[in-house]
Amino acid sequence: MTRHGYFGPRGTFTQMALRDWLADDDAAFAEAVPFATVPAALDGVRTGEVDVVMVPIENSVEGGVSATLDALNSGDPLSIQGEVLVPIKFVLAARAGTQRADINGVGSHSHAWPQVRAWMAKELPRAAYVPALSTAAAAEALASGEAQPFEAAVCAPLAADVFDLEVLAHDIGDNASAVTRFVLVGRRGLVPARTGADKTSVVLFQHDDHAGGLLQLLEQFAARGINLTLLESRPTGAAMGSYCFSVDFEGHLDDERVAEALLGLRRVSADIRFLGSYPRADGQASDVVRTAADESYASAREWLRGLRG
Amino acid sequence: MTRHGYFGPRGTFTQMALRDWLADDDAAFAEAVPFATVPAALDGVRTGEVDVVMVPIENSVEGGVSATLDALNSGDPLSIQGEVLVPIKFVLAARAGTQRADINGVGSHSHAWPQVRAWMAKELPRAAYVPALSTAAAAEALASGEAQPFEAAVCAPLAADVFDLEVLAHDIGDNASAVTRFVLVGRRGLVPARTGADKTSVVLFQHDDHAGGLLQLLEQFAARGINLTLLESRPTGAAMGSYCFSVDFEGHLDDERVAEALLGLRRVSADIRFLGSYPRADGQASDVVRTAADESYASAREWLRGLRG
Amino acid sequence: MTRHGYFGPRGTFTQMALRDWLADDDAAFAEAVPFATVPAALDGVRTGEVDVVMVPIENSVEGGVSATLDALNSGDPLSIQGEVLVPIKFVLAARAGTQRADINGVGSHSHAWPQVRAWMAKELPRAAYVPALSTAAAAEALASGEAQPFEAAVCAPLAADVFDLEVLAHDIGDNASAVTRFVLVGRRGLVPARTGADKTSVVLFQHDDHAGGLLQLLEQFAARGINLTLLESRPTGAAMGSYCFSVDFEGHLDDERVAEALLGLRRVSADIRFLGSYPRADGQASDVVRTAADESYASAREWLRGLRG
Amino acid sequence: MTRHGYFGPRGTFTQMALRDWLADDDAAFAEAVPFATVPAALDGVRTGEVDVVMVPIENSVEGGVSATLDALNSGDPLSIQGEVLVPIKFVLAARAGTQRADINGVGSHSHAWPQVRAWMAKELPRAAYVPALSTAAAAEALASGEAQPFEAAVCAPLAADVFDLEVLAHDIGDNASAVTRFVLVGRRGLVPARTGADKTSVVLFQHDDHAGGLLQLLEQFAARGINLTLLESRPTGAAMGSYCFSVDFEGHLDDERVAEALLGLRRVSADIRFLGSYPRADGQASDVVRTAADESYASAREWLRGLRG
Repeated sequence: MTRHGYFGPRGTFTQMALRDWLADDDAAFAEAVPFATVPAALDGVRTGEVDVVMVPIENSVEGGVSATLDALNSGDPLSIQGEVLVPIKFVLAARAGTQRADINGVGSHSHAWPQVRAWMAKELPRAAYVPALSTAAAAEALASGEAQPFEAAVCAPLAADVFDLEVLAHDIGDNASAVTRFVLVGRRGLVPARTGADKTSVVLFQHDDHAGGLLQLLEQFAARGINLTLLESRPTGAAMGSYCFSVDFEGHLDDERVAEALLGLRRVSADIRFLGSYPRADGQASDVVRTAADESYASAREWLRGLRG
Repeated sequence: MTRHGYFGPRGTFTQMALRDWLADDDAAFAEAVPFATVPAALDGVRTGEVDVVMVPIENSVEGGVSATLDALNSGDPLSIQGEVLVPIKFVLAARAGTQRADINGVGSHSHAWPQVRAWMAKELPRAAYVPALSTAAAAEALASGEAQPFEAAVCAPLAADVFDLEVLAHDIGDNASAVTRFVLVGRRGLVPARTGADKTSVVLFQHDDHAGGLLQLLEQFAARGINLTLLESRPTGAAMGSYCFSVDFEGHLDDERVAEALLGLRRVSADIRFLGSYPRADGQASDVVRTAADESYASAREWLRGLRG
Repeated sequence: MTRHGYFGPRGTFTQMALRDWLADDDAAFAEAVPFATVPAALDGVRTGEVDVVMVPIENSVEGGVSATLDALNSGDPLSIQGEVLVPIKFVLAARAGTQRADINGVGSHSHAWPQVRAWMAKELPRAAYVPALSTAAAAEALASGEAQPFEAAVCAPLAADVFDLEVLAHDIGDNASAVTRFVLVGRRGLVPARTGADKTSVVLFQHDDHAGGLLQLLEQFAARGINLTLLESRPTGAAMGSYCFSVDFEGHLDDERVAEALLGLRRVSADIRFLGSYPRADGQASDVVRTAADESYASAREWLRGLRG
Repeated sequence: MTRHGYFGPRGTFTQMALRDWLADDDAAFAEAVPFATVPAALDGVRTGEVDVVMVPIENSVEGGVSATLDALNSGDPLSIQGEVLVPIKFVLAARAGTQRADINGVGSHSHAWPQVRAWMAKELPRAAYVPALSTAAAAEALASGEAQPFEAAVCAPLAADVFDLEVLAHDIGDNASAVTRFVLVGRRGLVPARTGADKTSVVLFQHDDHAGGLLQLLEQFAARGINLTLLESRPTGAAMGSYCFSVDFEGHLDDERVAEALLGLRRVSADIRFLGSYPRADGQASDVVRTAADESYASAREWLRGLRG
């Protein structure tokens, strides 16, 4: 049986993503292992403690999740198995009996706070922000009964449920359509079969400056009619201005145009890390121009074989 | 006299950047106003409370500072006046008399913690991380004398100095060459004179998908022989996958090649926001190919005028 | 009154093009001066002997007319005023009373012969080709009554008419839709007003090899959404492999996108020669994308002016 | 034994190219078959009458030889086996005893005449040009003793030799460094082994207009770091403005970068015709960037195989 892990603790949006992924497999969900940090979760796969882990990778408001991108970009390579989109609906949760007037401090994760700033400014203008390790950690702290520098938490509905808190306000996010994308990460070499509605993720390192360098990399996609769905720059840490690029694009390792783009990128980039090909959460099939279809590649290769006798 | 502000509180690396910028102007440094958040600092310029503010924009290890990028990308436009590079040297600071063995928790900002993780794992493996609003806020909390869930802070040397804490360890960053770039932001329309060693910052919004869209934008730079020094993607918040790009490049608004690139970008992008032209902190002159030099543009225009009679 | 010239003698397709251009102006047509060669015709404009001359520039079967392209590419610059498309309908003409069986040799110009080769192979397989200076010269030679090494001429219908020959066969071209394009050339600096359905002609010289060099030139058009209608390579004569390019493209010197493309070409090419902007013979309006329209340029420039204060 | 043919008659520069190619093989040279036209020569290979034929393909002053380009671009495909560069040194030849003052007409081919125009204008300003089927045909006509409308011929030194004429002036070409390139053409499927200093010739047909279309084709070369040595546009004859491109580029069918460029061209062009890979006459090795070297392709493919398990 596949052993699952996730970036925890219980009650996070990441656990909600895992529940979505596992659908009705209650047993697997119950046995899933929470990890305290994203790097720890990925290491859990590397050491074999679990088979796959769910981690957040991109938020429609806050952008790429740096901790995840950086942890995927270094260390032993892993392979993304799939993705889940979770609408981000924050609640304001507190111990039973708490009134809004009692709230002087609000605990939450530093990524969540900017997403509820407008609601807070209007509804609880006097409340101070208190940083916590995660949204669920803030909820758990309240549930512990110990003294805290805050009376309420901004967290996922699941956290209020798990830690038995009262929800004082629902859906308090400033951006009602905020969504976070999570990926299920497994061991290197595991590549799910092509479905026709797939995505591939890579990390690209360029040789020199940003100008020509990135342009040359992007042309490898454009020349094969491949659409990008994400381009996130991340510093390599080597020096100010030294960046790598996390890139998601349409298609699967087994598509000819993807294979050729990967070959080209491998040649012209300073380095490339393959992070996986996997079905898209939205099931949208890739839009492929005729000259980039597998048949077009096959027919060209047959022609070349003919020339070479 | 110019009124200065900065992303505070006192004791942050941002205040150190401001001291660098002001050099020997002790009076201006003493009267500089700290702001609690980057958006508040920028609003301080917008409302006229101060004339310019210093804010962090890019770290060589952690990448672009999202709060600053997002705050510059929205609201009334502002104009970057200059930049400062500050080497990031973290110290471990505590109340006088604290021994390493006493330390169970360490307070710091969530951007600082990943930069000292290796040192901590080796030297203080049992210490838990406690998030704070800034590195200086952690130091200030210790200095306040009140009970805290941590016994030491990871902060700038200046913070230990300002808050009269004892430095238990110097230079504990995992990356000895880490640098943060700060920018001094003023009112829209203020553009420092061209020096020949300048940078220009813009935010670009593309029309469609990432593939052709970003490529077309980058070609506007490549076609004019302009080098990029930063490309940072940021979500627009409109939808998953909707991004804008913070781009820094060599040259000044008064350089012909920059003016032409801006004209081209204005035409082909969905939108462009000009964030300023200002002298480079490193004083490195732009490397301009002959065909992109001002004389080349002037001579071409003269030729065209001749054709048009 | 405008004095007209053409690449003669009388009876050529070029004279037919001039008649088209002059429409009902019989007086001007009657006084038009024939020149023996294309270079001589162009020199007729340069010396002021005539104001404008009609010369052939491109044939749909045989391609660019090298003599014209080379003569326009060197010497004092001239300016194309307009173009005429003439369907090429060859006739087989001979002295009155000639029978097909009498024909052992057929005189014509070396450009005309390949265009009737199939008809000749089928209808007059034994007839030898005898080169002449022009199709009309072959007809004129027969009309002169002197002994000739050929009994029939392949020429324009007009030549049979002018030289009073009998037409033995009509429309003997192998390609029924063959068309030749002629241009009316005047003095430098004369640029007809923009009509919205215009063409511009230039000659481009590149710096180095064919690969990157030509690509860089073509990108100047592509970046402004400009369609080419002709690209003809011509050796510069300097060395084997040294070429320049005669390029026709949609648009007028007074269109913003054309002006900007010319400025760019002037900067990045080794040299550029402007040969004129003039109304298209087919009257087809240019297809201009929104971002390349004049309004888009004007609005971008206004924005830039605002930035520069 | 290989049977050789050439575009004749005897005494042409093409025969000189064949002598160069055959070096000391006097027997093969003696038995080589002259053909009256380039298409006839190529058909001689197609029908098996000869194994290979020498034909002119490009002149440094006059450009591509249309008859050869068009004949290679249509009909059953053939394969270029090699190339020869011949310096073009024209002589003025006449029957023994002819004085310059006797010369009223000069016979030659229409490609040769423009190359001696300046010399003629200075030395024999009164002499009229009389077109001939080839430079050698003009010489042969004089040698025949029959009455001719010219007293001298502009031809190759070999022609004066072969037809026993007297040379009145040596090296009369206006461009002392004029060179013609000849190719030896054989049956389809014969591809000489790679030498490291090779050229490949193709004909490319594009889908639509000239702008994006040609650009997209050229990018296939640029993306693989391949230099072009010739780009010649030729009308397809289908309609005014419908062109194909004869392209020569560095490298051999057995080079990885060439194979990949051919595959890409096959996919994105409307059609492609392979005309051969063969050793360069100048023996100059291709300049290949590291990322386009065979090892780079091999290593990338191995990496891809690893990903695919």
